[in-house]
Amino acid sequence: MNLARLSINQETVRQLSIPELADGVTGLGITGIGLWRAQTQEYGVEAAAKLVRDAGLTVTSLCRGGFFTASDPAERAAALADNRTAIDEAATLGTDTLVLVSGGLPAGDRDIAAARERVADAIAELAPYAGERGVRLAIEPLHPMYASDRCVVSTIGQALDIAERFPAEQVGVVVDTYHIWWDDTVAAGIARAGAGGRIASFQLADWITPLPEGVLLGRGQLGDGCIDLRGFREQVDATGFSGAIEVEIFNPSLWARDGAEVLAEIAGRYRRHVL
Amino acid sequence: MNLARLSINQETVRQLSIPELADGVTGLGITGIGLWRAQTQEYGVEAAAKLVRDAGLTVTSLCRGGFFTASDPAERAAALADNRTAIDEAATLGTDTLVLVSGGLPAGDRDIAAARERVADAIAELAPYAGERGVRLAIEPLHPMYASDRCVVSTIGQALDIAERFPAEQVGVVVDTYHIWWDDTVAAGIARAGAGGRIASFQLADWITPLPEGVLLGRGQLGDGCIDLRGFREQVDATGFSGAIEVEIFNPSLWARDGAEVLAEIAGRYRRHVL
Repeated sequence: MNLARLSINQETVRQLSIPELADGVTGLGITGIGLWRAQTQEYGVEAAAKLVRDAGLTVTSLCRGGFFTASDPAERAAALADNRTAIDEAATLGTDTLVLVSGGLPAGDRDIAAARERVADAIAELAPYAGERGVRLAIEPLHPMYASDRCVVSTIGQALDIAERFPAEQVGVVVDTYHIWWDDTVAAGIARAGAGGRIASFQLADWITPLPEGVLLGRGQLGDGCIDLRGFREQVDATGFSGAIEVEIFNPSLWARDGAEVLAEIAGRYRRHVL
Repeated sequence: MNLARLSINQETVRQLSIPELADGVTGLGITGIGLWRAQTQEYGVEAAAKLVRDAGLTVTSLCRGGFFTASDPAERAAALADNRTAIDEAATLGTDTLVLVSGGLPAGDRDIAAARERVADAIAELAPYAGERGVRLAIEPLHPMYASDRCVVSTIGQALDIAERFPAEQVGVVVDTYHIWWDDTVAAGIARAGAGGRIASFQLADWITPLPEGVLLGRGQLGDGCIDLRGFREQVDATGFSGAIEVEIFNPSLWARDGAEVLAEIAGRYRRHVL
């Protein structure tokens, strides 16, 4: 079955409830889904865990922990506590991957190198806790356009520089085509991540322009943009990675459509542009 | 005079005509301006050259040549011809620096590595022509958010990889804080550029969010954002660079104000955040 590795991140079809998502993917022969914390909490973490278990689905990732860059001690402690909760939720959901978005620069702060070190310090505190619960922290480099307000980790190389300080079973990285496609060192980064067993998650979205205001919700359906998705899949596979290939597209034009229709379109695009 | 190295790119105060810009900077003791081709052509290239000469001003850069990534032979020939004209205009204006924006991916093209090679090929054709006219081609890496539609060269390292194939007096790079501030390898890139005598232009704008739709006109006034501008100036100076420091901010909120007031504000911000 050639959709065996395909996983659908729930934010791609946020018009669907968790049961609707489970029904929709099952009907297409897709066995993986990626979940988000807020939506899962709203549904109930235990209930969601039971639902996906009963449906025979695998939760390929939970989004997201992170936001580690506060310099205020109370904010920092709150972030660490919230990340422990996220790790617990991941364990309950039966997923081995918690995606981390590192956080941006605090207001008035101009020292991005120091913010990156605070990310590493936070991961040092959390990695053993995650490891004991069978959850791996997956550092996601986000596109440099998010560096100031969302994620000071912008490239696979930077993510690996942090991840490699910790055991591979505790900390890995996310390879998301949307964020890293432009980087001329990305092939070396993927090879390095694969060789070290650090690819915790492989996610797909295409790059389209013009970018919308705020640049958050402008990701493209597979094949609509300029990313060589198949080339990236081949590079990732060449490292020996055989895990899920998760489609995570944030785009209001997909949310406005019938969710089942969008899921079917993704399956088709995946066959045409990724496999 | 501590504004001796300051230059004002005309697009920062596009509400001013070229004579108004010349008057405005002269009144503040600023001796450098950066010009754009369309505006200069409209005014008359010879006339602009005479005006800046008579005012005792230096044209620190001309924006812009480039857009080299077309794969269609006719489009490519047209781009090369236009760039020869741009070089001639730079020579007429008495500036030694023509800024190059490389161009993005042609529609339907997913091979960014090949597009980058077409940039290098075009520069190979143009560099001797520029050198004979006392003009240096300045490859400008643009922020990765422009990689698909504007500039496939995203980092100082990539720009140097191309520039270093040619003599340093023919091809250099632009160090523009807005585009490169997020890069954890930028310090090494600036040092490498300086050691090779490749810093053709040093430009400043600050990084602010949220980014506007299309992400073109969201640059921040000096000091309004999160870039350590003084730190970058110190890094650039540490290489021995002593050229102009050009302020290039595209922001409608600056264009809506009195141009003289904006120029005075820039001078003040420059003293506070850059010197």
